[in-house]
Amino acid sequence: MARRAIGSASILSRNLRPSKGTTGFPDERSITEHLRRIAVIPPSSQVVVGIGDDCAVYRPEGSAEDLLFTTDLFIEGVHFLPETHSAADIARKALARGLSDIAAMGGAARICLVSLCVPRWSDDEWLRLFFAELVSDASRAGAVLAGGDLSHADTLACDIVVCGGVPQGRSFLRSGARPGDQIWVSGTLGGSAMGLETGQGAAWERHLNPQPRLALASHLQFGESRPTAAIDISDGLSLDLHRLCSASGVAAEITDPPQFPGATLAQALHGGEEYELMFTMPPGHSLPFQFQGLPLTPIGIIQEGPPGRILHNGRLVEPLGYDHFRN
Amino acid sequence: MARRAIGSASILSRNLRPSKGTTGFPDERSITEHLRRIAVIPPSSQVVVGIGDDCAVYRPEGSAEDLLFTTDLFIEGVHFLPETHSAADIARKALARGLSDIAAMGGAARICLVSLCVPRWSDDEWLRLFFAELVSDASRAGAVLAGGDLSHADTLACDIVVCGGVPQGRSFLRSGARPGDQIWVSGTLGGSAMGLETGQGAAWERHLNPQPRLALASHLQFGESRPTAAIDISDGLSLDLHRLCSASGVAAEITDPPQFPGATLAQALHGGEEYELMFTMPPGHSLPFQFQGLPLTPIGIIQEGPPGRILHNGRLVEPLGYDHFRN
Repeated sequence: MARRAIGSASILSRNLRPSKGTTGFPDERSITEHLRRIAVIPPSSQVVVGIGDDCAVYRPEGSAEDLLFTTDLFIEGVHFLPETHSAADIARKALARGLSDIAAMGGAARICLVSLCVPRWSDDEWLRLFFAELVSDASRAGAVLAGGDLSHADTLACDIVVCGGVPQGRSFLRSGARPGDQIWVSGTLGGSAMGLETGQGAAWERHLNPQPRLALASHLQFGESRPTAAIDISDGLSLDLHRLCSASGVAAEITDPPQFPGATLAQALHGGEEYELMFTMPPGHSLPFQFQGLPLTPIGIIQEGPPGRILHNGRLVEPLGYDHFRN
Repeated sequence: MARRAIGSASILSRNLRPSKGTTGFPDERSITEHLRRIAVIPPSSQVVVGIGDDCAVYRPEGSAEDLLFTTDLFIEGVHFLPETHSAADIARKALARGLSDIAAMGGAARICLVSLCVPRWSDDEWLRLFFAELVSDASRAGAVLAGGDLSHADTLACDIVVCGGVPQGRSFLRSGARPGDQIWVSGTLGGSAMGLETGQGAAWERHLNPQPRLALASHLQFGESRPTAAIDISDGLSLDLHRLCSASGVAAEITDPPQFPGATLAQALHGGEEYELMFTMPPGHSLPFQFQGLPLTPIGIIQEGPPGRILHNGRLVEPLGYDHFRN
């Protein structure tokens, strides 16, 4: 049961924030919304997209490429336990979170940085294995590990920064979905949550080895028909689709998503850490049902309706995916 | 004495890493050197400067501006104690570390992101004050807060990412100092360490309110004569000058640096968290002794000699500044 202490899927406790105060941040989104209101982007800024999407978008003067910025925390006791995750597992998963954000925006990875709080329980060999995996995975994704920061600490905390490139103005945003668009997902879902539950077999392998969908992102970016919106499934299909629909001001109706062998429907609908892509295609722009062996599945349709409302087989779905700050 | 538990100046305990293992990382530099060796930059990469300087440098295709990337951790129990630092203090100091790195490279701040582990002891009001200070300080520095990540955690850890801009190929690197160059520092030194010791008065104010020298950096970047090398004094003059000299393959001889009123010579030589600039000017290129009221002081000369060797008034100086991993 130790694995259930890890807060990385919807099935786990969310009662983790004891002191909410009285000024009103019931969940992560309310904090993000507050930040978006106060972090005003001046008209002269080269920041094209600020807080609220998978990445921020920066437009360097004179360049044909926009730059994508994302940072992702990976923390002992929250996202993993050292008893179940090796140094290489931690490096791989921490980086995958950032790479997946770049894929969600339709970008290619260019550069990454790592800030690492080195805990008392680690040693030099652990550090070597961590950095070896990080450098190798970054390189395989097309990125260079170019900097970071180090500190000692009681527990491990890792923050990965990834910067990616995307043709100017061609980022896949969460906000572009329109009624009539078809909703697609890559891969099969629920395996990571199932692995977290069972700690064994193919599902546990899936939990430890997320595959950021950079190749698919590039295919969608430069292919014949481009998505109108996209997001990666990091906190669960229900919550991430809710976020995409909220950002787009639309509702959605879905059928059963493709399930990882053995995973329950609830795990497929709400389980986090999938790092698959969910994207919307404009009417009349279909796709093959696989890309390089990876299943691509249409799971529903974007509709007019209350922004963020998700119907699953006709019934309302609560966005139950993982939120660090929800009651 | 509680403040002495904060590991942010040379006067504090460095015996903080219990398990070094046997594979040889005696200090932070040895880890950085290892990382630099394994994180190879392919010739095709747009990464111009990787691990080992104050910032990484990325050259966007077609742009006249290079981009600078830096990340800096700011951690409860390591860099600050919540008893002595308000939400605004923490935000201000965390951001200042990143802004100072941008200044050290001769750049201007463009965009920042924050990853925050929100601790149990905080509440919504704390979060509001933290983000208000962060947004306001970023804006004053010319940057937009454009993203980040949030997680809950037992203790506060904050990682700030700052991206800056600098005219192509004009970053101030640590490696450019040459024998005969004059060594300059901005401001007066030792105040932050003195404040950490005494917890009161102007020195404590200095400790809480570092002033990243972005205006000076711009003046040096676009003025009549440019530095050959630069670094910010974040871990102490002795250690940071040692780093600059090591990177440049040169030695240095210095006299007494300008001291903050009341600070000891040891505090001025070794105290961390100053966030003043130290830079080298080529022979024959002198500067006025102040810039916008900020003292500028020549403190010595770059010499041929063992890389990294510092002589102070003719005597060898150990680089005693703060290192997270030293014995």
